[in-house]
Amino acid sequence: MKQNIGIVGLGLIGASLAMAIKQNTEHNVYGLDINEQTMHRALEEGSIDGVLEDYGALDLLIVALFPQAAVELILDKVEQMKPGSIVMDICGVKKSVVTQVAQVCKSHKVEFIGGHPMAGRERWGYENATATLFNGASMILTPIFTDSWALERVQQLCNAVGFGRIVFTDPESHDKMIGYTSQLAHILSSAYIKNPLCMNYKGYTGGSFQDLTRVARLNPVMWSELFLLNRQNLLDDLDILIASLQEYRHAIEENDAQRLTQLLADGSRIKEALNEE
Amino acid sequence: MKQNIGIVGLGLIGASLAMAIKQNTEHNVYGLDINEQTMHRALEEGSIDGVLEDYGALDLLIVALFPQAAVELILDKVEQMKPGSIVMDICGVKKSVVTQVAQVCKSHKVEFIGGHPMAGRERWGYENATATLFNGASMILTPIFTDSWALERVQQLCNAVGFGRIVFTDPESHDKMIGYTSQLAHILSSAYIKNPLCMNYKGYTGGSFQDLTRVARLNPVMWSELFLLNRQNLLDDLDILIASLQEYRHAIEENDAQRLTQLLADGSRIKEALNEE
Repeated sequence: MKQNIGIVGLGLIGASLAMAIKQNTEHNVYGLDINEQTMHRALEEGSIDGVLEDYGALDLLIVALFPQAAVELILDKVEQMKPGSIVMDICGVKKSVVTQVAQVCKSHKVEFIGGHPMAGRERWGYENATATLFNGASMILTPIFTDSWALERVQQLCNAVGFGRIVFTDPESHDKMIGYTSQLAHILSSAYIKNPLCMNYKGYTGGSFQDLTRVARLNPVMWSELFLLNRQNLLDDLDILIASLQEYRHAIEENDAQRLTQLLADGSRIKEALNEE
Repeated sequence: MKQNIGIVGLGLIGASLAMAIKQNTEHNVYGLDINEQTMHRALEEGSIDGVLEDYGALDLLIVALFPQAAVELILDKVEQMKPGSIVMDICGVKKSVVTQVAQVCKSHKVEFIGGHPMAGRERWGYENATATLFNGASMILTPIFTDSWALERVQQLCNAVGFGRIVFTDPESHDKMIGYTSQLAHILSSAYIKNPLCMNYKGYTGGSFQDLTRVARLNPVMWSELFLLNRQNLLDDLDILIASLQEYRHAIEENDAQRLTQLLADGSRIKEALNEE
Protein backbone atom coordinates (compact mmCIF):
# COMPACT_ATOMS: atom_id res chain seq x y z
CA MET A 1 0.00 0.00 0.00
CA LYS A 2 1.33 3.37 -1.02
CA GLN A 3 1.24 5.59 2.05
CA ASN A 4 1.33 9.31 2.67
CA ILE A 5 4.08 9.87 5.19
CA GLY A 6 4.66 13.19 6.91
CA ILE A 7 7.94 14.05 8.58
CA VAL A 8 8.23 17.04 10.88
CA GLY A 9 11.79 18.10 11.53
CA LEU A 10 14.28 17.62 8.69
CA GLY A 11 17.42 17.45 10.78
CA LEU A 12 19.90 14.56 10.62
CA ILE A 13 17.38 11.85 11.54
CA GLY A 14 14.23 13.27 9.95
CA ALA A 15 15.89 14.11 6.64
CA SER A 16 17.78 10.79 6.55
CA LEU A 17 14.46 9.00 7.07
CA ALA A 18 12.87 11.07 4.28
CA MET A 19 15.72 10.23 1.91
CA ALA A 20 15.70 6.55 2.85
CA ILE A 21 11.93 6.28 2.42
CA LYS A 22 12.08 8.01 -0.98
CA GLN A 23 14.95 5.78 -2.06
CA ASN A 24 13.54 2.45 -0.86
CA THR A 25 9.75 2.70 -1.09
CA GLU A 26 6.95 4.07 -3.24
CA HIS A 27 5.46 6.14 -0.41
CA ASN A 28 4.85 9.87 -0.70
CA VAL A 29 6.86 11.93 1.75
CA TYR A 30 5.73 15.36 2.91
CA GLY A 31 8.16 17.30 5.04
CA LEU A 32 8.23 20.30 7.31
CA ASP A 33 11.10 22.15 8.89
CA ILE A 34 11.32 25.48 10.66
CA ASN A 35 14.35 26.37 8.56
CA GLU A 36 13.38 27.80 5.17
CA GLN A 37 16.69 26.95 3.55
CA THR A 38 16.30 23.33 4.63
CA MET A 39 12.81 23.20 3.14
CA HIS A 40 14.14 24.67 -0.08
CA ARG A 41 16.94 22.12 -0.31
CA ALA A 42 14.73 19.18 0.63
CA LEU A 43 12.24 20.05 -2.12
CA GLU A 44 14.90 20.82 -4.70
CA GLU A 45 16.85 17.63 -3.99
CA GLY A 46 13.72 15.50 -3.96
CA SER A 47 14.21 14.35 -0.37
CA ILE A 48 10.51 15.10 0.05
CA ASP A 49 7.63 15.16 -2.44
CA GLY A 50 6.09 18.27 -1.01
CA VAL A 51 5.44 20.50 1.97
CA LEU A 52 3.45 18.91 4.79
CA GLU A 53 0.27 20.97 5.05
CA ASP A 54 -2.64 18.57 5.52
CA TYR A 55 -2.14 16.30 8.55
CA GLY A 56 -5.53 14.73 7.79
CA ALA A 57 -4.19 13.22 4.58
CA LEU A 58 -1.40 11.30 6.33
CA ASP A 59 -1.22 7.57 6.95
CA LEU A 60 1.88 8.00 9.09
CA LEU A 61 3.32 11.05 10.83
CA ILE A 62 6.94 10.83 11.94
CA VAL A 63 7.93 13.50 14.44
CA ALA A 64 11.68 14.09 14.35
CA LEU A 65 11.93 16.97 16.80
CA PHE A 66 13.54 17.35 20.22
CA PRO A 67 11.42 15.68 22.94
CA GLN A 68 9.37 18.58 24.30
CA ALA A 69 8.78 20.03 20.85
CA ALA A 70 7.71 16.57 19.64
CA VAL A 71 5.18 16.23 22.44
CA GLU A 72 3.78 19.69 21.76
CA LEU A 73 3.45 19.06 18.05
CA ILE A 74 1.72 15.71 18.54
CA LEU A 75 -0.74 17.13 21.07
CA ASP A 76 -1.40 20.04 18.73
CA LYS A 77 -1.90 18.03 15.52
CA VAL A 78 -3.49 14.76 16.64
CA GLU A 79 -6.99 16.16 16.26
CA GLN A 80 -6.34 16.74 12.59
CA MET A 81 -5.11 13.19 11.99
CA LYS A 82 -7.57 10.70 10.54
CA PRO A 83 -8.70 7.66 12.56
CA GLY A 84 -6.53 4.68 11.72
CA SER A 85 -3.43 6.74 11.01
CA ILE A 86 -0.16 6.32 12.92
CA VAL A 87 2.09 8.75 14.78
CA MET A 88 5.68 7.87 15.60
CA ASP A 89 8.28 9.95 17.42
CA ILE A 90 11.99 9.16 17.20
CA CYS A 91 13.25 10.82 20.39
CA GLY A 92 16.19 9.52 22.42
CA VAL A 93 14.08 9.28 25.58
CA LYS A 94 10.84 7.38 25.57
CA LYS A 95 9.05 7.38 28.93
CA SER A 96 8.55 11.14 29.12
CA VAL A 97 7.36 11.38 25.50
CA VAL A 98 5.24 8.24 25.42
CA THR A 99 3.37 8.95 28.66
CA GLN A 100 2.45 12.42 27.43
CA VAL A 101 1.03 11.39 24.05
CA ALA A 102 0.14 7.68 23.81
CA GLN A 103 -3.22 7.86 25.51
CA VAL A 104 -4.22 11.12 23.84
CA CYS A 105 -3.52 9.61 20.42
CA LYS A 106 -5.50 6.49 21.28
CA SER A 107 -8.47 8.63 22.32
CA HIS A 108 -8.43 10.11 18.80
CA LYS A 109 -8.24 6.60 17.26
CA VAL A 110 -4.71 7.38 16.14
CA GLU A 111 -2.10 4.71 16.80
CA PHE A 112 1.05 5.93 18.52
CA ILE A 113 4.41 4.23 18.65
CA GLY A 114 7.62 5.46 20.19
CA GLY A 115 10.80 4.72 18.26
CA HIS A 116 14.51 5.37 18.77
CA PRO A 117 16.82 4.77 15.83
CA MET A 118 20.27 3.83 17.15
CA ALA A 119 22.08 5.81 14.52
CA GLY A 120 23.80 9.13 14.69
CA ARG A 121 26.80 11.10 13.61
CA GLU A 122 29.07 13.68 15.16
CA ARG A 123 27.60 16.19 12.71
CA TRP A 124 23.95 16.98 12.44
CA GLY A 125 21.35 18.92 10.49
CA TYR A 126 19.92 18.38 7.02
CA GLU A 127 23.33 18.86 5.41
CA ASN A 128 24.67 15.71 7.07
CA ALA A 129 21.64 13.52 6.36
CA THR A 130 22.03 10.48 4.18
CA ALA A 131 19.71 7.75 2.91
CA THR A 132 22.11 5.09 4.22
CA LEU A 133 22.27 6.35 7.84
CA PHE A 134 20.19 3.44 9.18
CA ASN A 135 21.82 0.62 7.24
CA GLY A 136 22.28 -2.26 9.63
CA ALA A 137 21.45 -0.12 12.65
CA SER A 138 19.12 -1.06 15.46
CA MET A 139 15.64 0.49 15.84
CA ILE A 140 14.09 0.37 19.29
CA LEU A 141 10.28 0.41 19.39
CA THR A 142 8.35 0.94 22.64
CA PRO A 143 4.72 0.13 21.79
CA ILE A 144 2.08 0.93 24.35
CA PHE A 145 -1.63 0.75 23.53
CA THR A 146 -0.47 0.05 19.97
CA ASP A 147 -2.52 -2.22 17.67
CA SER A 148 -0.60 -4.99 15.99
CA TRP A 149 -1.43 -3.84 12.45
CA ALA A 150 0.17 -0.47 13.20
CA LEU A 151 3.22 -2.11 14.70
CA GLU A 152 3.54 -4.31 11.64
CA ARG A 153 3.36 -1.36 9.30
CA VAL A 154 6.05 0.53 11.19
CA GLN A 155 8.23 -2.58 11.23
CA GLN A 156 7.89 -2.95 7.48
CA LEU A 157 8.97 0.64 7.02
CA CYS A 158 11.96 0.14 9.36
CA ASN A 159 13.07 -2.89 7.39
CA ALA A 160 12.60 -1.04 4.10
CA VAL A 161 14.82 1.91 5.09
CA GLY A 162 17.68 -0.36 6.09
CA PHE A 163 17.49 -1.06 9.82
CA GLY A 164 19.25 -4.34 10.59
CA ARG A 165 17.52 -5.12 13.85
CA ILE A 166 14.29 -4.13 15.56
CA VAL A 167 14.15 -4.32 19.35
CA PHE A 168 10.90 -4.13 21.29
CA THR A 169 10.87 -2.94 24.84
CA ASP A 170 8.87 -0.77 27.21
CA PRO A 171 9.64 2.95 27.60
CA GLU A 172 11.10 2.57 31.13
CA SER A 173 13.51 -0.20 30.12
CA HIS A 174 14.53 1.77 27.05
CA ASP A 175 15.45 4.80 29.13
CA LYS A 176 17.37 2.69 31.64
CA MET A 177 19.42 0.95 28.95
CA ILE A 178 20.00 4.06 26.83
CA GLY A 179 20.98 6.07 29.91
CA TYR A 180 23.90 3.70 30.30
CA THR A 181 24.88 2.62 26.78
CA SER A 182 24.49 5.98 25.10
CA GLN A 183 23.87 8.96 27.38
CA LEU A 184 26.49 8.07 30.01
CA ALA A 185 28.95 7.34 27.19
CA HIS A 186 28.44 10.85 25.86
CA ILE A 187 28.90 12.46 29.29
CA LEU A 188 32.00 10.38 29.91
CA SER A 189 33.50 11.34 26.58
CA SER A 190 32.74 15.00 27.22
CA ALA A 191 34.16 14.89 30.76
CA TYR A 192 37.29 12.98 29.70
CA ILE A 193 38.29 15.53 27.07
CA LYS A 194 38.38 18.32 29.67
CA ASN A 195 42.01 17.88 30.60
CA PRO A 196 44.41 20.53 29.29
CA LEU A 197 46.76 17.74 28.14
CA CYS A 198 44.31 16.84 25.37
CA MET A 199 45.66 19.58 23.12
CA ASN A 200 48.88 17.61 22.60
CA TYR A 201 47.38 14.17 22.09
CA LYS A 202 48.74 13.68 18.60
CA GLY A 203 51.70 11.33 18.59
CA TYR A 204 50.71 10.15 22.07
CA THR A 205 47.94 7.74 21.21
CA GLY A 206 47.43 4.38 19.60
CA GLY A 207 43.71 5.04 19.17
CA SER A 208 42.18 4.82 22.63
CA PHE A 209 42.09 8.61 23.01
CA GLN A 210 40.21 8.99 19.72
CA ASP A 211 37.77 6.22 20.64
CA LEU A 212 37.07 7.69 24.05
CA THR A 213 36.48 11.19 22.70
CA ARG A 214 34.58 10.50 19.46
CA VAL A 215 31.17 11.36 20.84
CA ALA A 216 32.37 14.43 22.77
CA ARG A 217 31.32 16.32 19.65
CA LEU A 218 27.56 16.53 20.02
CA ASN A 219 24.56 18.84 19.83
CA PRO A 220 24.65 20.34 23.36
CA VAL A 221 21.05 21.62 23.41
CA MET A 222 19.56 18.31 22.28
CA TRP A 223 21.64 16.15 24.60
CA SER A 224 21.04 18.42 27.56
CA GLU A 225 17.29 18.02 27.05
CA LEU A 226 17.63 14.24 26.68
CA PHE A 227 19.74 13.95 29.84
CA LEU A 228 17.32 15.94 31.98
CA LEU A 229 14.39 13.85 30.73
CA ASN A 230 16.25 10.75 31.90
CA ARG A 231 17.60 12.34 35.04
CA GLN A 232 17.28 9.60 37.66
CA ASN A 233 18.69 6.83 35.47
CA LEU A 234 21.65 9.02 34.55
CA LEU A 235 22.32 9.99 38.16
CA ASP A 236 22.30 6.29 39.10
CA ASP A 237 24.68 5.44 36.25
CA LEU A 238 26.99 8.33 37.10
CA ASP A 239 27.12 7.19 40.73
CA ILE A 240 28.02 3.65 39.69
CA LEU A 241 30.71 4.94 37.33
CA ILE A 242 32.24 7.39 39.80
CA ALA A 243 32.28 4.71 42.53
CA SER A 244 33.97 2.35 40.08
CA LEU A 245 36.60 4.93 39.18
CA GLN A 246 37.19 5.55 42.89
CA GLU A 247 38.00 1.86 43.33
CA TYR A 248 40.76 2.04 40.72
CA ARG A 249 41.95 5.33 42.19
CA HIS A 250 42.13 3.81 45.66
CA ALA A 251 44.10 0.78 44.48
CA ILE A 252 46.56 3.07 42.67
CA GLU A 253 46.90 5.41 45.64
CA GLU A 254 47.55 2.44 47.96
CA ASN A 255 50.02 0.93 45.52
CA ASP A 256 47.88 -2.19 45.69
CA ALA A 257 49.00 -4.14 42.62
CA GLN A 258 46.94 -7.19 43.48
CA ARG A 259 43.71 -5.23 43.85
CA LEU A 260 44.40 -3.15 40.74
CA THR A 261 45.12 -6.25 38.68
CA GLN A 262 41.89 -7.77 39.94
CA LEU A 263 39.85 -4.72 38.98
CA LEU A 264 41.35 -4.71 35.50
CA ALA A 265 40.92 -8.46 35.10
CA ASP A 266 37.24 -8.18 36.03
CA GLY A 267 36.66 -5.48 33.41
CA SER A 268 38.59 -7.43 30.80
CA ARG A 269 36.54 -10.56 31.46
CA ILE A 270 33.28 -8.64 31.09
CA LYS A 271 34.37 -7.19 27.76
CA GLU A 272 35.50 -10.58 26.54
CA ALA A 273 32.15 -12.12 27.51
CA LEU A 274 30.30 -9.40 25.59
CA ASN A 275 32.48 -9.96 22.51
CA GLU A 276 31.83 -13.67 22.53
CA GLU A 277 28.05 -13.39 22.61
CA MET B 1 74.93 -1.59 7.51
CA LYS B 2 73.62 -5.01 8.31
CA GLN B 3 73.08 -5.19 12.06
CA ASN B 4 72.70 -7.95 14.58
CA ILE B 5 69.53 -7.16 16.49
CA GLY B 6 68.51 -8.99 19.63
CA ILE B 7 64.94 -8.96 20.91
CA VAL B 8 64.12 -10.19 24.41
CA GLY B 9 60.44 -10.90 24.90
CA LEU B 10 58.48 -12.17 21.91
CA GLY B 11 55.04 -11.02 22.98
CA LEU B 12 52.79 -8.85 20.84
CA ILE B 13 55.25 -5.96 20.52
CA GLY B 14 58.55 -7.88 20.54
CA ALA B 15 57.42 -10.47 18.02
CA SER B 16 55.75 -7.86 15.80
CA LEU B 17 59.03 -5.92 15.79
CA ALA B 18 60.94 -9.09 14.93
CA MET B 19 58.61 -9.85 12.04
CA ALA B 20 58.64 -6.27 10.79
CA ILE B 21 62.44 -6.09 10.93
CA LYS B 22 62.77 -9.40 9.09
CA GLN B 23 60.28 -8.30 6.48
CA ASN B 24 61.61 -4.80 5.86
CA THR B 25 65.38 -4.93 6.46
CA GLU B 26 68.44 -7.12 5.93
CA HIS B 27 69.31 -7.21 9.63
CA ASN B 28 69.76 -10.44 11.56
CA VAL B 29 67.25 -10.91 14.35
CA TYR B 30 68.00 -13.05 17.39
CA GLY B 31 65.14 -13.63 19.79
CA LEU B 32 64.53 -14.86 23.29
CA ASP B 33 61.34 -15.68 25.11
CA ILE B 34 60.65 -17.46 28.37
CA ASN B 35 57.97 -19.52 26.62
CA GLU B 36 59.41 -22.54 24.82
CA GLN B 37 56.50 -22.90 22.46
CA THR B 38 56.87 -19.27 21.41
CA MET B 39 60.58 -19.83 20.71
CA HIS B 40 59.75 -22.88 18.66
CA ARG B 41 57.16 -21.05 16.59
CA ALA B 42 59.31 -17.94 16.12
CA LEU B 43 62.19 -20.05 14.77
CA GLU B 44 59.96 -22.25 12.64
CA GLU B 45 58.10 -19.32 11.11
CA GLY B 46 61.29 -17.35 10.51
CA SER B 47 60.25 -14.45 12.72
CA ILE B 48 63.79 -14.67 14.10
CA ASP B 49 67.03 -15.95 12.59
CA GLY B 50 68.15 -17.67 15.74
CA VAL B 51 68.16 -17.84 19.50
CA LEU B 52 69.73 -14.86 21.27
CA GLU B 53 72.71 -16.28 23.16
CA ASP B 54 75.60 -13.88 22.71
CA TYR B 55 74.73 -10.35 23.84
CA GLY B 56 78.27 -9.30 22.93
CA ALA B 57 77.57 -9.88 19.25
CA LEU B 58 74.64 -7.44 19.13
CA ASP B 59 74.57 -3.99 17.56
CA LEU B 60 71.14 -3.33 19.01
CA LEU B 61 69.28 -4.98 21.88
CA ILE B 62 65.52 -4.36 22.05
CA VAL B 63 64.00 -5.26 25.40
CA ALA B 64 60.29 -5.98 25.01
CA LEU B 65 59.48 -7.02 28.58
CA PHE B 66 57.29 -5.52 31.29
CA PRO B 67 59.01 -2.52 32.95
CA GLN B 68 60.65 -4.08 36.03
CA ALA B 69 61.73 -7.16 34.10
CA ALA B 70 63.15 -4.92 31.37
CA VAL B 71 65.21 -2.95 33.90
CA GLU B 72 66.53 -6.15 35.51
CA LEU B 73 67.51 -7.66 32.17
CA ILE B 74 69.28 -4.52 31.01
CA LEU B 75 71.23 -4.16 34.27
CA ASP B 76 72.12 -7.85 34.08
CA LYS B 77 73.25 -7.93 30.45
CA VAL B 78 74.78 -4.53 29.81
CA GLU B 79 78.24 -5.71 30.87
CA GLN B 80 78.18 -8.28 28.10
CA MET B 81 77.26 -5.71 25.44
CA LYS B 82 80.05 -4.30 23.28
CA PRO B 83 80.97 -0.61 23.44
CA GLY B 84 79.15 1.32 20.74
CA SER B 85 76.13 -0.93 20.78
CA ILE B 86 72.61 0.29 21.56
CA VAL B 87 69.95 -0.82 24.04
CA MET B 88 66.31 0.18 23.62
CA ASP B 89 63.34 -0.66 25.82
CA ILE B 90 59.77 -0.32 24.56
CA CYS B 91 57.90 0.01 27.88
CA GLY B 92 54.75 2.07 28.31
CA VAL B 93 56.28 4.10 31.12
CA LYS B 94 59.59 5.85 30.61
CA LYS B 95 60.76 7.80 33.65
CA SER B 96 61.05 4.81 35.94
CA VAL B 97 62.81 2.66 33.35
CA VAL B 98 65.08 5.33 31.91
CA THR B 99 66.32 6.63 35.24
CA GLN B 100 67.28 3.11 36.32
CA VAL B 101 69.29 2.17 33.24
CA ALA B 102 70.39 5.16 31.14
CA GLN B 103 73.41 6.12 33.21
CA VAL B 104 74.51 2.52 33.80
CA CYS B 105 74.45 1.85 30.06
CA LYS B 106 76.43 5.02 29.37
CA SER B 107 79.08 3.97 31.90
CA HIS B 108 79.55 0.78 29.85
CA LYS B 109 79.79 2.84 26.64
CA VAL B 110 76.49 1.41 25.55
CA GLU B 111 73.93 3.86 24.15
CA PHE B 112 70.50 3.63 25.71
CA ILE B 113 67.25 4.95 24.30
CA GLY B 114 63.76 4.62 25.69
CA GLY B 115 60.99 4.01 23.19
CA HIS B 116 57.23 3.58 23.33
CA PRO B 117 55.48 2.33 20.21
CA MET B 118 51.91 3.67 20.17
CA ALA B 119 50.46 0.47 18.82
CA GLY B 120 48.57 -2.29 20.50
CA ARG B 121 45.69 -4.66 20.20
CA GLU B 122 43.05 -6.06 22.51
CA ARG B 123 44.78 -9.42 22.16
CA TRP B 124 48.38 -10.06 22.99
CA GLY B 125 51.15 -12.62 22.91
CA TYR B 126 53.17 -14.01 20.00
CA GLU B 127 50.06 -15.48 18.40
CA ASN B 128 48.63 -12.02 17.78
CA ALA B 129 51.85 -10.43 16.51
CA THR B 130 51.99 -9.12 12.97
CA ALA B 131 54.63 -7.44 10.82
CA THR B 132 52.20 -4.61 10.02
CA LEU B 133 51.37 -3.66 13.63
CA PHE B 134 53.34 -0.42 13.47
CA ASN B 135 52.21 0.79 10.06
CA GLY B 136 51.51 4.48 10.34
CA ALA B 137 51.71 4.41 14.13
CA SER B 138 53.59 6.86 16.29
CA MET B 139 56.86 5.95 18.06
CA ILE B 140 57.82 8.04 21.05
CA LEU B 141 61.54 8.24 21.80
CA THR B 142 62.86 9.69 25.06
CA PRO B 143 66.61 10.09 24.52
CA ILE B 144 68.76 10.97 27.52
CA PHE B 145 72.57 10.83 27.39
CA THR B 146 72.04 9.40 23.90
CA ASP B 147 74.57 10.12 21.12
CA SER B 148 73.12 11.40 17.88
CA TRP B 149 74.48 8.54 15.77
CA ALA B 150 72.57 6.07 17.97
CA LEU B 151 69.42 8.11 17.78
CA GLU B 152 69.73 8.24 14.02
CA ARG B 153 70.14 4.50 13.75
CA VAL B 154 67.07 3.83 15.90
CA GLN B 155 65.07 6.32 13.84
CA GLN B 156 66.08 4.58 10.62
CA LEU B 157 64.89 1.29 12.05
CA CYS B 158 61.59 2.84 13.18
CA ASN B 159 60.99 4.22 9.72
CA ALA B 160 61.90 0.89 8.14
CA VAL B 161 59.40 -1.12 10.20
CA GLY B 162 56.53 1.19 9.27
CA PHE B 163 56.12 3.83 11.97
CA GLY B 164 54.43 6.89 10.49
CA ARG B 165 55.63 9.42 13.01
CA ILE B 166 58.49 9.71 15.49
CA VAL B 167 57.98 11.97 18.48
CA PHE B 168 60.85 13.05 20.75
CA THR B 169 60.23 14.03 24.31
CA ASP B 170 61.69 13.63 27.79
CA PRO B 171 60.65 10.72 30.02
CA GLU B 172 58.63 12.91 32.42
CA SER B 173 56.60 14.54 29.66
CA HIS B 174 56.01 11.15 28.07
CA ASP B 175 54.58 9.73 31.29
CA LYS B 176 52.39 12.78 31.84
CA MET B 177 50.93 12.64 28.33
CA ILE B 178 50.52 8.86 28.23
CA GLY B 179 48.94 8.83 31.69
CA TYR B 180 46.13 10.87 30.21
CA THR B 181 45.82 9.77 26.56
CA SER B 182 46.30 6.06 27.12
CA GLN B 183 46.37 4.89 30.74
CA LEU B 184 43.39 6.94 31.93
CA ALA B 185 41.48 5.87 28.82
CA HIS B 186 42.03 2.23 29.78
CA ILE B 187 40.90 2.78 33.38
CA LEU B 188 37.85 4.68 32.21
CA SER B 189 36.90 1.97 29.77
CA SER B 190 37.36 -0.68 32.45
CA ALA B 191 35.36 1.29 35.03
CA TYR B 192 32.56 2.14 32.58
CA ILE B 193 31.89 -1.48 31.68
CA LYS B 194 31.21 -2.38 35.33
CA ASN B 195 27.50 -1.69 35.23
CA PRO B 196 25.24 -4.72 35.20
CA LEU B 197 23.25 -3.16 32.33
CA CYS B 198 26.19 -3.84 30.00
CA MET B 199 25.11 -7.42 29.43
CA ASN B 200 22.11 -6.25 27.37
CA TYR B 201 23.87 -3.58 25.33
CA LYS B 202 23.13 -5.19 21.95
CA GLY B 203 20.34 -3.39 20.15
CA TYR B 204 20.80 -0.44 22.49
CA THR B 205 23.79 1.23 20.94
CA GLY B 206 24.74 3.16 17.85
CA GLY B 207 28.43 2.59 18.49
CA SER B 208 29.37 4.74 21.46
CA PHE B 209 29.20 1.80 23.88
CA GLN B 210 31.59 -0.22 21.72
CA ASP B 211 33.98 2.72 21.35
CA LEU B 212 34.00 3.42 25.07
CA THR B 213 34.65 -0.20 26.02
CA ARG B 214 37.09 -1.32 23.31
CA VAL B 215 40.18 -1.10 25.50
CA ALA B 216 38.50 -2.65 28.56
CA ARG B 217 39.96 -5.88 27.24
CA LEU B 218 43.59 -5.67 28.30
CA ASN B 219 46.44 -7.53 29.94
CA PRO B 220 45.70 -6.83 33.63
CA VAL B 221 49.16 -7.68 34.99
CA MET B 222 50.98 -5.48 32.49
CA TRP B 223 48.65 -2.50 32.81
CA SER B 224 48.63 -2.74 36.60
CA GLU B 225 52.43 -2.49 36.59
CA LEU B 226 52.35 0.43 34.14
CA PHE B 227 49.75 2.31 36.20
CA LEU B 228 51.66 1.96 39.46
CA LEU B 229 54.87 3.15 37.79
CA ASN B 230 53.02 6.29 36.71
CA ARG B 231 51.08 6.64 39.90
CA GLN B 232 51.10 10.38 40.57
CA ASN B 233 50.22 11.39 37.03
CA LEU B 234 47.35 8.93 36.99
CA LEU B 235 46.01 10.08 40.34
CA ASP B 236 46.08 13.68 39.08
CA ASP B 237 44.26 12.68 35.88
CA LEU B 238 41.69 10.63 37.77
CA ASP B 239 41.01 13.58 40.08
CA ILE B 240 40.49 15.90 37.10
CA LEU B 241 38.17 13.39 35.46
CA ILE B 242 36.11 12.65 38.55
CA ALA B 243 35.76 16.37 39.28
CA SER B 244 34.64 16.90 35.70
CA LEU B 245 32.07 14.09 35.95
CA GLN B 246 30.81 15.62 39.21
CA GLU B 247 30.13 18.89 37.39
CA TYR B 248 27.85 17.14 34.89
CA ARG B 249 26.26 15.17 37.71
CA HIS B 250 25.58 18.34 39.66
CA ALA B 251 23.98 20.11 36.68
CA ILE B 252 21.76 17.07 36.08
CA GLU B 253 20.79 16.78 39.73
CA GLU B 254 19.93 20.48 39.86
CA ASN B 255 17.97 20.26 36.61
CA ASP B 256 20.21 23.06 35.38
CA ALA B 257 19.72 22.90 31.61
CA GLN B 258 21.78 26.02 30.97
CA ARG B 259 24.80 24.77 32.90
CA LEU B 260 24.53 21.28 31.40
CA THR B 261 24.31 22.69 27.89
CA GLN B 262 27.37 24.82 28.62
CA LEU B 263 29.38 21.85 29.89
CA LEU B 264 28.49 19.83 26.79
CA ALA B 265 29.17 22.76 24.46
CA ASP B 266 32.62 23.22 26.02
CA GLY B 267 33.50 19.56 25.46
CA SER B 268 32.15 19.63 21.93
CA ARG B 269 34.22 22.71 21.09
CA ILE B 270 37.39 21.08 22.41
CA LYS B 271 36.80 17.96 20.32
CA GLU B 272 36.07 20.06 17.24
CA ALA B 273 39.28 22.04 17.74
CA LEU B 274 41.30 18.82 18.00
CA ASN B 275 39.70 17.46 14.82
CA GLU B 276 40.52 20.60 12.89
CA GLU B 277 44.20 20.66 13.76
